[in-house]
Amino acid sequence: MSLQQKLTGTGIAIITPFNEDRSIDWAAFENLINFWIENKVEYLVAIGTTGESATQTREEEQEVFDFVKKVTGKRVPLVAGVGGNDTHEVLDAFKKMKLDGFDAILSVSPYYNKPRQEGIYQHYKALNDAAPLPIIMYNVPGRTGMSVSVETTLRIAHDCNNIFATKEASGSFEQINQIMKNKPSDFMLISGDDAITLPMIACGAKGLISVIANAYPKEYSDMVRLCLAGKFEEALPLHLKYLDMVDALFKEGSPSGVKYVLNKMGYCKNTMRLPVVPVSQAHEAKLDGLMAAVANR
Amino acid sequence: MSLQQKLTGTGIAIITPFNEDRSIDWAAFENLINFWIENKVEYLVAIGTTGESATQTREEEQEVFDFVKKVTGKRVPLVAGVGGNDTHEVLDAFKKMKLDGFDAILSVSPYYNKPRQEGIYQHYKALNDAAPLPIIMYNVPGRTGMSVSVETTLRIAHDCNNIFATKEASGSFEQINQIMKNKPSDFMLISGDDAITLPMIACGAKGLISVIANAYPKEYSDMVRLCLAGKFEEALPLHLKYLDMVDALFKEGSPSGVKYVLNKMGYCKNTMRLPVVPVSQAHEAKLDGLMAAVANR
Amino acid sequence: MSLQQKLTGTGIAIITPFNEDRSIDWAAFENLINFWIENKVEYLVAIGTTGESATQTREEEQEVFDFVKKVTGKRVPLVAGVGGNDTHEVLDAFKKMKLDGFDAILSVSPYYNKPRQEGIYQHYKALNDAAPLPIIMYNVPGRTGMSVSVETTLRIAHDCNNIFATKEASGSFEQINQIMKNKPSDFMLISGDDAITLPMIACGAKGLISVIANAYPKEYSDMVRLCLAGKFEEALPLHLKYLDMVDALFKEGSPSGVKYVLNKMGYCKNTMRLPVVPVSQAHEAKLDGLMAAVANR
Amino acid sequence: MSLQQKLTGTGIAIITPFNEDRSIDWAAFENLINFWIENKVEYLVAIGTTGESATQTREEEQEVFDFVKKVTGKRVPLVAGVGGNDTHEVLDAFKKMKLDGFDAILSVSPYYNKPRQEGIYQHYKALNDAAPLPIIMYNVPGRTGMSVSVETTLRIAHDCNNIFATKEASGSFEQINQIMKNKPSDFMLISGDDAITLPMIACGAKGLISVIANAYPKEYSDMVRLCLAGKFEEALPLHLKYLDMVDALFKEGSPSGVKYVLNKMGYCKNTMRLPVVPVSQAHEAKLDGLMAAVANR
Repeated sequence: MSLQQKLTGTGIAIITPFNEDRSIDWAAFENLINFWIENKVEYLVAIGTTGESATQTREEEQEVFDFVKKVTGKRVPLVAGVGGNDTHEVLDAFKKMKLDGFDAILSVSPYYNKPRQEGIYQHYKALNDAAPLPIIMYNVPGRTGMSVSVETTLRIAHDCNNIFATKEASGSFEQINQIMKNKPSDFMLISGDDAITLPMIACGAKGLISVIANAYPKEYSDMVRLCLAGKFEEALPLHLKYLDMVDALFKEGSPSGVKYVLNKMGYCKNTMRLPVVPVSQAHEAKLDGLMAAVANR
Repeated sequence: MSLQQKLTGTGIAIITPFNEDRSIDWAAFENLINFWIENKVEYLVAIGTTGESATQTREEEQEVFDFVKKVTGKRVPLVAGVGGNDTHEVLDAFKKMKLDGFDAILSVSPYYNKPRQEGIYQHYKALNDAAPLPIIMYNVPGRTGMSVSVETTLRIAHDCNNIFATKEASGSFEQINQIMKNKPSDFMLISGDDAITLPMIACGAKGLISVIANAYPKEYSDMVRLCLAGKFEEALPLHLKYLDMVDALFKEGSPSGVKYVLNKMGYCKNTMRLPVVPVSQAHEAKLDGLMAAVANR
Repeated sequence: MSLQQKLTGTGIAIITPFNEDRSIDWAAFENLINFWIENKVEYLVAIGTTGESATQTREEEQEVFDFVKKVTGKRVPLVAGVGGNDTHEVLDAFKKMKLDGFDAILSVSPYYNKPRQEGIYQHYKALNDAAPLPIIMYNVPGRTGMSVSVETTLRIAHDCNNIFATKEASGSFEQINQIMKNKPSDFMLISGDDAITLPMIACGAKGLISVIANAYPKEYSDMVRLCLAGKFEEALPLHLKYLDMVDALFKEGSPSGVKYVLNKMGYCKNTMRLPVVPVSQAHEAKLDGLMAAVANR
Repeated sequence: MSLQQKLTGTGIAIITPFNEDRSIDWAAFENLINFWIENKVEYLVAIGTTGESATQTREEEQEVFDFVKKVTGKRVPLVAGVGGNDTHEVLDAFKKMKLDGFDAILSVSPYYNKPRQEGIYQHYKALNDAAPLPIIMYNVPGRTGMSVSVETTLRIAHDCNNIFATKEASGSFEQINQIMKNKPSDFMLISGDDAITLPMIACGAKGLISVIANAYPKEYSDMVRLCLAGKFEEALPLHLKYLDMVDALFKEGSPSGVKYVLNKMGYCKNTMRLPVVPVSQAHEAKLDGLMAAVANR
């Protein structure tokens, strides 16, 4: 089975559960990993943005990778989030980190320093040339401040043989359509946006790296599987059912939303690392209502 | 003289000159510091975004701070850029870094992880409580992906007695106007946007932390001084004269633009750290033309 | 067959062909109507935005309606564009115009004067109460300057029994998703956006009111029929094939783009009424290339 | 005194007061005209957007022009709003309407049909060539859906000798700055945006066509006069004082906001023509509070 086939479907951008003292809550983490795998998502992505990569050191991230690998025990494919806005530092991480047992790397495009498109290309080219594993590039302009253009995405897709997929979270169907139209046939488009995954798969995306599936792994990966099977009419009610929940998970920042829901479900503490904070009380009530709503229907 | 008075006028967000091997070009740096000070800008800001903070380690930044302090020799006030999107790591830097000889810290709001406003507040509150020096907060939503709202800015301005100013680069006059209307009288609004500094000072800003002043310290700080003296009619021709240059300095990313110009002027190499890259050849020609244009008039 | 069923599929927002002296080119119009019907689009919409409603008087529009009706001869259902930003004037038009033989009215939300949502509601409520025919409301915020919100759309959908559908051209899947989730089951969502019709149908839209189908009625309505049959995998290559053409038809204003293509095909003059003007020469070359590209594949 | 000099300062985009039966309330109108003139605004603009041009026929507009002229009795210069998105119809209005006694025409760029820039140019060129009076062009992309670009503005400014000014309401200082930098010296930039008039005058604008001055003619034109005299420090407190009121006047649509305030002041009924409706009760309370606030200070 090719890597593309293995990563078709739903990957979870898994949270990192913390204790109140900023340490990682390994017991909760183990439970969660089993919960996710038993509920049939296709793969896990550790140390993505949802995993609070911004507030963990490379050393802590290595610990997380090791732990996730151990608990998973080859039951599902694994993707390691290793990105940054300092090319040199990411290359250094590629060298130092032990990623055996992982199937691919997810690496976000540079944020904050906003290189021009040529700089984004050179960044990914350098990563490609030193890649210890195949790479999924990641475009999330609402966070990075600089979209990877269609042209740059295609240039990377054609030139960089270790970069086999892009996680697209631009929300732009113009971008999505143009990538689909012009990409090499073996280059994969992955939705990075729970809310528009159904229409993205209709346009040719091969799955989703998901936030909501942290809390609803079975339900949301079912929806994605129906889409991938071309059964959009069956998928649509599920898509619409979780719409307000998806929206609410992001309203006051992520992973604050999904950690609150997982805490209510009993899976982890409602604890983030600063500057990320728990959702407001008003939003807790909103999320409680939505949890009840999706449970009842 | 109060800190507010000392930092009224133009501060340069100074570049960090590099050699081709990624090392810092200290000789060029020394020349530049003297050039900037002799051309009468009011103060210098080291290791801001323009100084390529994203691709330097805290250790390198400490070296830069030490060097800038030494060369400056108290001729002008100094501001140290120390920010990040991991509150704990910034607090750690506050503890470890030696910032004596500096007058203030510039600290950008969290980027990429996009905390809700309460998280931004708690981030700055934590910084305030541990501040080794007075702090200028910094709002640049085009880079961070999350604007510090008017309400949060004012909450910080009122609650945090070590945060005495905000560098505003939202470009929104609604934001600027509301901050001016409601801020404590001793809280300073500083433009973070060369292009709209004239109208921002008309609205009450007390100066600028500038990119273009790296290359045109005398000319642009003259413009700012005229504005601060209420002589907008005299300032306007200067403002308009540098408009296209300001625009061009950002067109292909910063500090790529201003480093190209400084290189042409003989002050430094045209070298950035990846993922930031030099401007394109087409843009070099554009910048050449603009350099000639501002020289001639 | 219900009206909803009759209008499932592709309707063309038909152009109005003009002579150089601003008069209507009736001979061309007759040919076009036959071309469109023979190429199997489901219905025609006369005097929409694409029909240059802005530069025709109600008297001219009546002539167009009469002519379209006569030439169509009941071969396909017909929709009459009757809208405006002056409620009183639209009601007056509803009274005066003879619309027998038409199946429905398309009526755009108020543009330019930007009423608040309550005003948009009252506008459509007044139209509903005086409607000579069932009404399709139309949201195109890029033209009107004011989006009809989800809430207002749903309020109208529930309260106004003569308004049975909305043509959505906001381009926002958040808007589209929320309307789909909450609309009455017999209220129809119609795409008003050629470029995202495939994903909109995946989300539950029942067809398209199209610009590109003026020139490619068979090809684009085939694509829509495949989507409506749930055959997205077969529809996708067609969707992608026409993507650049769709984009190019709007690049320099509509109907300028599609009139140029129809002119090259021999169907009408390349003539618009001011302020709408023909596309530039550079864009003609672009369109020529795209016409060749879609013909060849 | 040149026309430019006569129109330096504040013009009011005057409301048209209506009775409940849609007729014009002439008695209220007479009082208002006297109120405005006695409170020293520099000129009046009848039948602008604020005058609800969208819902009046050219015949009604002629009546308004005649009445405004009669009551004004040459005490201040007058501008007539005559615009549209159908070039031919506007030219027809230019021919038919009696505008003697008026000093200039304000003519908005085409809305809704979104011609490309060449079409906007040809529209204004045609108006220029048939102009019965000097023309102020008007760019308000938030309403029209299509900004008049800097290039088109400058092209018109240079080519059309009857078009002597532009009312800019794009809100973009990039646009404002570039127009100021490149315009012919006798071409006037007028703010079309109460909220940013102070910084626009600092950048070279010569005044304002105002909504808020309907209700606060003395106070807001004082602010503008201070700016024009270069006294920005004195103007700033006034600018900030009216900031929230300016914002609130537009929050639920204009002229709904200002008509509510004028109604509370006793000047006119709170009556608009559909689709424009009165502000909500919640917003009435907000406006009441702001009226008290500006009265007290």
